[in-house]
Amino acid sequence: MNGEIITIGNELTSGRTPDLNSWYAAGKLTASGLSVTRVTSVGDNEEMVSHALKMVSESSRFVIVTGGLGSTEDDMTCRIVANALDRPLYPDHQMLEKIKAHVKARGAEMTPPLHKMALLPEGATMISPSGDTCGFSLAKKDVRFYFLPGVPEQMRHLMDKFVLPELLSLYETVPVVRQRLLKLYGLSEPRIAEIFVKLRGKPTDAVLGFYPHFPENHITVSLQGEDESTVTAELDQVEAEILSLVGDYVFSTGNQEMEEVVGRLLTERGKTISVAESCTGGLIGHRLTNVPGSSDYFCGGVVSYSNQSKVNMLGVDVETINKYGAVSDETAQEMARGIRERMKSNLGLAVTGIAGPDGGNKDKPVGTVYIGLSNAEEVFSRRYRFWGQRKQIKLNTSMMALDWIRRYLNGDQILSGI
Amino acid sequence: MNGEIITIGNELTSGRTPDLNSWYAAGKLTASGLSVTRVTSVGDNEEMVSHALKMVSESSRFVIVTGGLGSTEDDMTCRIVANALDRPLYPDHQMLEKIKAHVKARGAEMTPPLHKMALLPEGATMISPSGDTCGFSLAKKDVRFYFLPGVPEQMRHLMDKFVLPELLSLYETVPVVRQRLLKLYGLSEPRIAEIFVKLRGKPTDAVLGFYPHFPENHITVSLQGEDESTVTAELDQVEAEILSLVGDYVFSTGNQEMEEVVGRLLTERGKTISVAESCTGGLIGHRLTNVPGSSDYFCGGVVSYSNQSKVNMLGVDVETINKYGAVSDETAQEMARGIRERMKSNLGLAVTGIAGPDGGNKDKPVGTVYIGLSNAEEVFSRRYRFWGQRKQIKLNTSMMALDWIRRYLNGDQILSGI
Repeated sequence: MNGEIITIGNELTSGRTPDLNSWYAAGKLTASGLSVTRVTSVGDNEEMVSHALKMVSESSRFVIVTGGLGSTEDDMTCRIVANALDRPLYPDHQMLEKIKAHVKARGAEMTPPLHKMALLPEGATMISPSGDTCGFSLAKKDVRFYFLPGVPEQMRHLMDKFVLPELLSLYETVPVVRQRLLKLYGLSEPRIAEIFVKLRGKPTDAVLGFYPHFPENHITVSLQGEDESTVTAELDQVEAEILSLVGDYVFSTGNQEMEEVVGRLLTERGKTISVAESCTGGLIGHRLTNVPGSSDYFCGGVVSYSNQSKVNMLGVDVETINKYGAVSDETAQEMARGIRERMKSNLGLAVTGIAGPDGGNKDKPVGTVYIGLSNAEEVFSRRYRFWGQRKQIKLNTSMMALDWIRRYLNGDQILSGI
Repeated sequence: MNGEIITIGNELTSGRTPDLNSWYAAGKLTASGLSVTRVTSVGDNEEMVSHALKMVSESSRFVIVTGGLGSTEDDMTCRIVANALDRPLYPDHQMLEKIKAHVKARGAEMTPPLHKMALLPEGATMISPSGDTCGFSLAKKDVRFYFLPGVPEQMRHLMDKFVLPELLSLYETVPVVRQRLLKLYGLSEPRIAEIFVKLRGKPTDAVLGFYPHFPENHITVSLQGEDESTVTAELDQVEAEILSLVGDYVFSTGNQEMEEVVGRLLTERGKTISVAESCTGGLIGHRLTNVPGSSDYFCGGVVSYSNQSKVNMLGVDVETINKYGAVSDETAQEMARGIRERMKSNLGLAVTGIAGPDGGNKDKPVGTVYIGLSNAEEVFSRRYRFWGQRKQIKLNTSMMALDWIRRYLNGDQILSGI
């Protein structure tokens, strides 16, 4: 069953904000077996919005429209919809009551723009499954239009609570649509292209997709079919082939973040961890603590951004810094050992490097990073060279450091540096 | 001068990835005085791509097309362009040499998909201003088409180095197009809506836009005109009116992040800072160190995720934790004082709270956060209640904590909590 998405807002055509609403809606619709054939974004311009509404493809059975339902000055979707679809506006009693209740709860007063929000095109049905978030739907011939607010949280709420359930009740979807997502780290694009070439020869209807997602690379394997078990078996086979080719680079076969994978492994192995961060400034701790329940295995960390703090807070020998530098194997190792001992954790992870744009030199250019790992028996470290801007170097460093823990706990070989 | 953007890829219509390419291109074009009237995203589907290319508006003078130029299996733009615009494919010698050089540099071999990349529609001109990134351009009647790769870094490079300079040399743009961006934190949407109502009565052609950007709110003021000084003067006036209404909530009138504003203020005042983070897990340190040169004022921090680390690493009295709890005014104050003394910084900032989803109770529900700030003379703290999911609570906490520093250094009143 095909449909399309229209997003409205000057912020989209002027590049003020990325179009995250169509991204969310498309993902949800696709995962439900519905197909989005086109996404159109237009500004808050009557002619363009009207044209987009009239241009809906003959094959589309549903249209999700987001934006233009708020109270600020540039909202006008209702009036344009009324003209484009020939449905005069009238005040909707139910909508007006909702708005009044919402305004009262916030301790504010009704204003003319808020009254305007209660006008709906003729034949429209208010969507308000719960709370104070509203949109409306409208049938025109055999196409269902859903008009949703542009504020992402509100739009997502209405998609999940109303639009998707209604669409799934109205239309028969392809019996089984399944997609696997494999996330890889540390494998270059040409090597991933080779996997695609190798898999092309295999007899399967599965569709492969490749998506660089710095610093990760994502591979999708998609398949439609008549019954669950056949589709699952074929996807299992393709996934197994990819894993046999590049298994240890695949850190997630679900839709997990690296920090979730690391958290699961730490929990399974009964290990705790602490981190000593220099160039990442706290990013590794931030990522680890994005996972609910991380306090079970994450003891804490030190952001040792100055040499003094490496000495005071981690017990790095001042002679080590003087002799080898704050960015060195020796310092990374002492940081890893120091944080593990002070936090009384099983593992101590450390990073020290030059995130740039300044601070590099010939021997240690911007992007030079040392990672260190300490357990009760030993401590080891390795030098890496990352590329890009400051934020990319920080992100890649945090990723490599977390991948160390993943590979260490899996018994895999840690990726080599330069 | 109007144009449009077409982005191609199943990842866009299936919701696998947000459309960041159109976002980037639209922003660059708008900032240059060119106007984007529509953005269309379609999947890797011959019929839909062909339709989108044929559907280009009569008023469009340029079309930016991204995606479908890589070497993986789902790339096919060239063939479709050839059919849709009636321009047979032929191998481009210059393109082939570029690809060979690129492949050689990576130590890989030429493959049939790579050979396919060198086929261009008749009349097309290769775009390759530098390095090994390629696209092509094509004129059809009075419309210029630019076909760029879908990989964001490559697409951005070609936009900046070739497409924008060429468009600006070809078309006369509106003499002056200017936009101001004001970023606010801590002011509710209804109160921002009031500002809009108040400003509507003023005689100005400036267009106001409102964009929630959790946890920030952004206001844009846009104006076109014939000469720079008139436009600037009018924008100055509108900006001054907004600042007179809600000045201290506006943390940036440029396009700065909160951490950049805080970094600038610390530098101007000659102050250094250190942070003790519990529930944010390192996010505040991460944000502070996203700013180049932050090592001049950021000494470092401690992520004290366990009670033990609050005692060991920050010197929080174990009795304080036992009596008042790890999430309390008293603990926040001792954390702030402890990190300031240990890091020998002028200011010590601390946060401790319950990010959820577990750990809350009736007295201190999920989202309860205490922020503390210590200087050489005093230490103070305040309780907040934030809403949302774990990541939102972490983000809002980091934002409020950084806003404390901004307001403290500006001599403004710190926002009250609950």
